[in-house]
Amino acid sequence: MPHPQAMRNLALLAVSASLLAAAPAAAQDLSATAVAVRDKALSDSTAWEIAESLTTEIGGRMVGSPEMERAKDWSVATFKRLGFQNVKVETFTTPAWFRGQESAEVVGPHPHKLHILGLGRSVSTPKGGLTAEVALFRTYEELLAQPEGSLKGKIAVVTGVMTRSQDGSGYGAVGPQRRSGAVEAAKRGAVAYLVRSLSTDDTRLPHTGGAQPAGIPAAALSTPDAELLERLVARGKPVTIKLNMTSRFEPKAPAYNISGEIPGTDPNAGVLIVGGHLDSWDPGTGAVDDAAGIAITTAAAKLAASQGPLKRTIRVVMWGSEEQGGSSEAYLAAHKDEVAQMVVVGESDSGAGRVWQVRLPKGSLEHPAMKAFRGAIAPLKVIVSREAPRFGGADVSGLVGAGAPFVEFEQDASRYFDLHHSADDTLDKIDPAELSQNVAVWASFLHTAANSEIDFRKEAGR
Amino acid sequence: MPHPQAMRNLALLAVSASLLAAAPAAAQDLSATAVAVRDKALSDSTAWEIAESLTTEIGGRMVGSPEMERAKDWSVATFKRLGFQNVKVETFTTPAWFRGQESAEVVGPHPHKLHILGLGRSVSTPKGGLTAEVALFRTYEELLAQPEGSLKGKIAVVTGVMTRSQDGSGYGAVGPQRRSGAVEAAKRGAVAYLVRSLSTDDTRLPHTGGAQPAGIPAAALSTPDAELLERLVARGKPVTIKLNMTSRFEPKAPAYNISGEIPGTDPNAGVLIVGGHLDSWDPGTGAVDDAAGIAITTAAAKLAASQGPLKRTIRVVMWGSEEQGGSSEAYLAAHKDEVAQMVVVGESDSGAGRVWQVRLPKGSLEHPAMKAFRGAIAPLKVIVSREAPRFGGADVSGLVGAGAPFVEFEQDASRYFDLHHSADDTLDKIDPAELSQNVAVWASFLHTAANSEIDFRKEAGR
Repeated sequence: MPHPQAMRNLALLAVSASLLAAAPAAAQDLSATAVAVRDKALSDSTAWEIAESLTTEIGGRMVGSPEMERAKDWSVATFKRLGFQNVKVETFTTPAWFRGQESAEVVGPHPHKLHILGLGRSVSTPKGGLTAEVALFRTYEELLAQPEGSLKGKIAVVTGVMTRSQDGSGYGAVGPQRRSGAVEAAKRGAVAYLVRSLSTDDTRLPHTGGAQPAGIPAAALSTPDAELLERLVARGKPVTIKLNMTSRFEPKAPAYNISGEIPGTDPNAGVLIVGGHLDSWDPGTGAVDDAAGIAITTAAAKLAASQGPLKRTIRVVMWGSEEQGGSSEAYLAAHKDEVAQMVVVGESDSGAGRVWQVRLPKGSLEHPAMKAFRGAIAPLKVIVSREAPRFGGADVSGLVGAGAPFVEFEQDASRYFDLHHSADDTLDKIDPAELSQNVAVWASFLHTAANSEIDFRKEAGR
Repeated sequence: MPHPQAMRNLALLAVSASLLAAAPAAAQDLSATAVAVRDKALSDSTAWEIAESLTTEIGGRMVGSPEMERAKDWSVATFKRLGFQNVKVETFTTPAWFRGQESAEVVGPHPHKLHILGLGRSVSTPKGGLTAEVALFRTYEELLAQPEGSLKGKIAVVTGVMTRSQDGSGYGAVGPQRRSGAVEAAKRGAVAYLVRSLSTDDTRLPHTGGAQPAGIPAAALSTPDAELLERLVARGKPVTIKLNMTSRFEPKAPAYNISGEIPGTDPNAGVLIVGGHLDSWDPGTGAVDDAAGIAITTAAAKLAASQGPLKRTIRVVMWGSEEQGGSSEAYLAAHKDEVAQMVVVGESDSGAGRVWQVRLPKGSLEHPAMKAFRGAIAPLKVIVSREAPRFGGADVSGLVGAGAPFVEFEQDASRYFDLHHSADDTLDKIDPAELSQNVAVWASFLHTAANSEIDFRKEAGR
């Protein structure tokens, strides 16, 4: 995909020239090469090609599935094709849930087919399905306010709405209704649980996701179906739903963390670890979640080294079980002795929207390497927060807990939750220009951090 | 639904006052009452309640289905509840097609499940499905350029794209690929036909629709699936699809044109016939296509008479088989002796987007009644075209062919084809304010035409 950037690049040249004038010699070099890396990234198509290939040749990638086996081979081949070294497949086991057949319908008083997707870890209905009356709550809090036993024999339904927001905070706000709703409904006697999708869209496609095992069937309703149920219940007559779901659970499915390296010239200078997750939910092709993250970080690592060899090693990891959990723990277990050598870790896992804010490790903003980074990304319309990172990504949370410094590059999530965990998570939703902006930010960062001696731990302590 | 209109209404009062100053006495009355009708419509919730009721209590309404039987009863009850007189159910028979089970998957070289919806009149696949290689064409013209026999044993795929446009003309431009593609593919030896949905959206929901009987299975692909197939085919290896479809066809299913009247004070002054169609495709709940049209015209007829009895009778018809055809012919057959008494006919069947242009019968623009109408709707941001109407709606095409004058009120179709014939055709897609604007336009028109002696045939001849 060509990225006509001529006009923008002219503007960038002016910015970088003024930065160079004020900086000392070594930092000047880093500022100049960071800008060169950024500009190369803005017109590079590697990330797009990676996302296109993974979504087209593999598609959805549930942990433990045949698709994941193919994805593992794809990962190894991709790293090798792009010239990565020390390509490794680290196998571990993790619980894996598999969707079977699913259907739901309102049987009375006004029949309707409902569009649902089972939540991860949902159990099957009894053979032939179950039919029960609905108890509908417009918020999760309303469900929690019900006394124990009060939902006996009912299908509990929670229809809390999600707010669209750039920082994705709307997702967290209603998260418990998906993750814990079935457990709370079961405690109160419900025989099944339906929840309005955690979604900002209005299509008839439900959004799946992980949930705590509850012992009762649990599924997500599409937005229009949740609103239909509200209207039916508002009519005052009992609403009855027939639900039929099958699923399968494997407590120990094989999973893979796959990595490749761009080796640094100084093997003792530490390693930078970045990546995205290879697994996805099944309804879509795992494009924005998270082929994009894999594409961005893999391309960025390559581009970071495009101005000559780097001092430090960059390792890209394609984590193998983010959606159903396990990658982070497995990666920490396999690399805990290496944590002290980790310069910084980070994951790209909020889609393919542009980076609008970066959070750098505490105390590091004024280091010449980070000044060079900040100078390079300023024209990309990125805020450099004065606050420390809060969350580095689910797959690096183990490393972070063990003391690895981490970054947080916040992507514009305004549209992400229209697509997330639904059949709509497909390649066409990725904007190549936005994808390139992400690559430019990550590549500039990796370049400046890998080609300097910045010690994020020490900067934090000053 | 409340419609806060206070500020807008103040502006409208100023407009109507200036109109009144320049007009003679009788026309003044009509101008003033037309404005009163319009303003009442803008803050009235009848149309919303009708659309809400039909989509919630009935849902999708295929001709010949149990849902249509319920819809018939709903129509009669709705007319009576709203005080319509002479409520009639006119039964006819029409061919009806019913969807069964449908699935499609790419079996190689890269397996993917595809999201499809069978096209109306498609035949079933052989039992157990059929598996064949894809022959993909990016335009319908490319398919037509293939010699006879050249697609022997293949699944022909056409992926022409549809352009978003306010006037909906993008639909017509690619219409033949859905309506005639299977016939053309079959002529050339294809064993099945898949077509990119006639749609402007990018969701994973396919859009169904009518097609000429072709003797081979035919289905629509969602936009992302059509693009996925393009990418798979572009890789140069043969792409194989397994298709499994069942359907049922009834050559003589029962269908109903249902009507109700607001009787005029002068039984010899003619009748105005307006309406929408009651049937819909099955995947959605038939909200924008065409609960909206029924809601708009039914509410408008009521509101037209809200300033006192009208001279002429308004008849609202809920036509019973637009999607699969037959209502228009049946209505003409039952009412051909009445055509000379029809003052004007019209149908609302392009969704619930606001009316942006009206086309009035030739020569009628300067008649005092139409001047009153034009004055009333000018603040609603409606263009009054100098051109004659081109199309009054599928269900009035029989009457129009027999000589009935007709109007064309063009709705903004920019978003209509995101929803049309798909599972996304649900109530939440209707904007209550836009729906009210439609009602205001139709009610003002019905009021001025029914409360005057305008003779559209005579105006055309002057």
